Amino acid sequence: MNSPIRVTVWGENHHENSERDRAAMAERYPEGMHGAVAAGIKELLGDAVEVRTATHQEPDHGLTEEVLENTDVLTWWGHMAHDTVDDAVVDRVHQRVLGGMGLLALHSAHFSKIFIKLMATSCSLSWRNSRDTELVWTVSPSHPIAQGVPQPIVIDEQEMYGEFFDIPEPDELVFLSTFTGGEVFRSGVCYRRGKGKVFYFSPGDQDYPVYHHPDIKRVLANAVEWAAPAASADFQPPAVRNQPEPFFAAELKQKESADV
Amino acid sequence: MNSPIRVTVWGENHHENSERDRAAMAERYPEGMHGAVAAGIKELLGDAVEVRTATHQEPDHGLTEEVLENTDVLTWWGHMAHDTVDDAVVDRVHQRVLGGMGLLALHSAHFSKIFIKLMATSCSLSWRNSRDTELVWTVSPSHPIAQGVPQPIVIDEQEMYGEFFDIPEPDELVFLSTFTGGEVFRSGVCYRRGKGKVFYFSPGDQDYPVYHHPDIKRVLANAVEWAAPAASADFQPPAVRNQPEPFFAAELKQKESADV
Amino acid sequence: MNSPIRVTVWGENHHENSERDRAAMAERYPEGMHGAVAAGIKELLGDAVEVRTATHQEPDHGLTEEVLENTDVLTWWGHMAHDTVDDAVVDRVHQRVLGGMGLLALHSAHFSKIFIKLMATSCSLSWRNSRDTELVWTVSPSHPIAQGVPQPIVIDEQEMYGEFFDIPEPDELVFLSTFTGGEVFRSGVCYRRGKGKVFYFSPGDQDYPVYHHPDIKRVLANAVEWAAPAASADFQPPAVRNQPEPFFAAELKQKESADV
Amino acid sequence: MNSPIRVTVWGENHHENSERDRAAMAERYPEGMHGAVAAGIKELLGDAVEVRTATHQEPDHGLTEEVLENTDVLTWWGHMAHDTVDDAVVDRVHQRVLGGMGLLALHSAHFSKIFIKLMATSCSLSWRNSRDTELVWTVSPSHPIAQGVPQPIVIDEQEMYGEFFDIPEPDELVFLSTFTGGEVFRSGVCYRRGKGKVFYFSPGDQDYPVYHHPDIKRVLANAVEWAAPAASADFQPPAVRNQPEPFFAAELKQKESADV
Repeated sequence: MNSPIRVTVWGENHHENSERDRAAMAERYPEGMHGAVAAGIKELLGDAVEVRTATHQEPDHGLTEEVLENTDVLTWWGHMAHDTVDDAVVDRVHQRVLGGMGLLALHSAHFSKIFIKLMATSCSLSWRNSRDTELVWTVSPSHPIAQGVPQPIVIDEQEMYGEFFDIPEPDELVFLSTFTGGEVFRSGVCYRRGKGKVFYFSPGDQDYPVYHHPDIKRVLANAVEWAAPAASADFQPPAVRNQPEPFFAAELKQKESADV
Repeated sequence: MNSPIRVTVWGENHHENSERDRAAMAERYPEGMHGAVAAGIKELLGDAVEVRTATHQEPDHGLTEEVLENTDVLTWWGHMAHDTVDDAVVDRVHQRVLGGMGLLALHSAHFSKIFIKLMATSCSLSWRNSRDTELVWTVSPSHPIAQGVPQPIVIDEQEMYGEFFDIPEPDELVFLSTFTGGEVFRSGVCYRRGKGKVFYFSPGDQDYPVYHHPDIKRVLANAVEWAAPAASADFQPPAVRNQPEPFFAAELKQKESADV
Repeated sequence: MNSPIRVTVWGENHHENSERDRAAMAERYPEGMHGAVAAGIKELLGDAVEVRTATHQEPDHGLTEEVLENTDVLTWWGHMAHDTVDDAVVDRVHQRVLGGMGLLALHSAHFSKIFIKLMATSCSLSWRNSRDTELVWTVSPSHPIAQGVPQPIVIDEQEMYGEFFDIPEPDELVFLSTFTGGEVFRSGVCYRRGKGKVFYFSPGDQDYPVYHHPDIKRVLANAVEWAAPAASADFQPPAVRNQPEPFFAAELKQKESADV
Repeated sequence: MNSPIRVTVWGENHHENSERDRAAMAERYPEGMHGAVAAGIKELLGDAVEVRTATHQEPDHGLTEEVLENTDVLTWWGHMAHDTVDDAVVDRVHQRVLGGMGLLALHSAHFSKIFIKLMATSCSLSWRNSRDTELVWTVSPSHPIAQGVPQPIVIDEQEMYGEFFDIPEPDELVFLSTFTGGEVFRSGVCYRRGKGKVFYFSPGDQDYPVYHHPDIKRVLANAVEWAAPAASADFQPPAVRNQPEPFFAAELKQKESADV
């Protein structure tokens, strides 16, 4: 694909503005978490991407028809305001995914409306916020998303996300995480839905500077490239075909059948 | 499991009562399509099941909390009235599936609200109603749902359902169908969602007596047994576990890592 | 299935007889590791199984044609003597699996000839023997093999097996293990090969009394039931069908095609 | 990946030289089937590939250590001479696949030693040579191998390959074929083994000019790009890691566990 991948990095942008977290966030993520995610992708993919950001507070949460029509890959980070995301926007994003747009759901976005809708399960999990160290292990070494990262990635401090994580069996399992407390989590999982690709990646909490971690930036950049649609994408969700002409003019010749 | 599997066979029961189809349906399915599906399951599984029927026209579509609390496996056939199914009932069924209830979605139920919700895709397909012969081929011969049927099952007359069928990659692919017109369809597919099991099986149109076909009855009976929850099922959807105690008291020892 | 599942528990029976380990093994596994595995299955499944043992030292390693013809599920534990297992016996077991026999490969059997042959990969892994605690987490709570065990299973002392474990992507992933050292392992994985089912389960080292652990016994008993072939099994591996008659007499009607 | 993908097209080159087929093959495939496959890949991928051919009759079947060390993707077509392929060469190819080389197994290569070894099943199927028309249907429209081909691909004349095809459940199912006779076949299937990717594609018999079909050439070119290893590939099969240092210094804190 010669033209750049058009990436929209969506941020809930709540902690950045909340009374409680504002000061710490300004230090940890001066451009917001979405700013950090966007910067990492730009840093690693350069001219191969065009990156914009959009946030919850903008009209249509920054995800108008026009923005989505110009988005090949959408990344989504949310946490406190899932319920206030407009259902019409969620449906719009969903249709775009079915039509071929890639989606990267990050960390607490496991409980976002769009991810729950795409998984069709509760997406519940086990969690504890106690500065666990997280180790991210690759279990699919030839997968494009796992290229260029060590075995394991070491994240000094992170929130713990643990099993049972109520998601459908992934189409591809790329990463497993362990934590100081002994827990395990399917932390990097791939799905296809309609014509679109979905990647969930759990590292990345607002309380820790995970999106500045070079290996995490590498994973996100790899995932953007993996999730990008084919150059020929028309972004139409698969449609019903009514009464197509048959290819064969046929009739049943015999009915004897063999056991398997 | 010693106690019988409690099966609820749900029927839209529209064609049975419509001006246009009433006469033909009374001949083809004198007890309704739900009646035929229920009879087939009872015939083959006997005392191992307790079967009841429920229809769209009943209060709560016959799917009250109490009915669902006493249902291990629900079968669903609908066609013309998908849109008039109450969302609250759909959510109730969905929660019950996540908690462990089995669901068999039949034929045109590919467009039912509950199936679309569970798949999270458009579930669109290609179709033609022109008395095609359908051959149902087993591609997973050791799968419990495929036991006791010939290779292939021959259905003399059926509506054609063809690819592309917009569903997630199945967890298990059991049957593929071909048609006189040359089309192909993933006609028997398995999913796990939460604690529940879902089987979609496409043969079975209102215009043809497919549910009287002995091999089709065998598939449905097998699928009921496959989809039944474990004896210990508590039917609670997987829940979040907040701040569980760690299992290990640990600290990071070293950070050297190896490439994959 | 009314007739009992015929289980053959195979043991390498090396550590039990070696100069170095004999004394400790006699205390830990007085009937041998195969004896302990067999006893656990009998204890939990009772009349539903007929269990025999076979060991490396017997003629044909105890796996004659006749024994295999009377085996529904074979469990395999080996460690030091993989290379001395006769290729002809391995081929015989392989053919029986393709024909429908279940196979449970246990712990260090990841490097057995039969498991490597079935996986077709190196089956290499990371390991350390330093009395790690192992936690076995269920990631497929409705899977029959995971019924009746706590979340997680706690094994006080075990050898560490860690990723990258070079196996094909499992058909079903049931258990993930973590270790005191922070490692992770896909410790319970399911495959179908031909008509047979294969389950690999890693807990169970000669240096620790893991096969006396009640939860581990439960997993093995569940796996025996899961891996058992259908009552109608003929144990013939899938065969070529040469020049079958066509079902349809057909000709190509048209060649117009639609883009996906 | 900026440097070209190094492709080796292997041909059994038997029919091209046999008394019976020589004349017809010279007309149908004047450069041999391997010549046609190679030409199609070069035509569509241009400077992005370096393509060479190798045949059964050459020393080491043309697959010396040096050739394999300079091969990113190997395509394999064989039919009559599977048994005469040297086991040492098969092992060499197998190790290279585990290390990251892509493998495309074509048509009757379902019975090649290398494909059977990688699948670990019988790879048996149903077949009939009676000039069936084959329709190749895409069931994974966003898969890179399916880009740029119509739905379905129409092959006027082909040998029939039908189910049951005794292969492991594919990691990704891309194409399904139907035939004039009503049969169905999983004709395009993807696997990962070790670090390598494997694609089996059934269209392409010596009796028909299938490798000149523009859509078939497109599939093969797409598959070469899909199967190519990452730029950073070291081609070492995954290895055992003995006694690695633990990442955590930990001890068990508590043993209370929760049911799933």
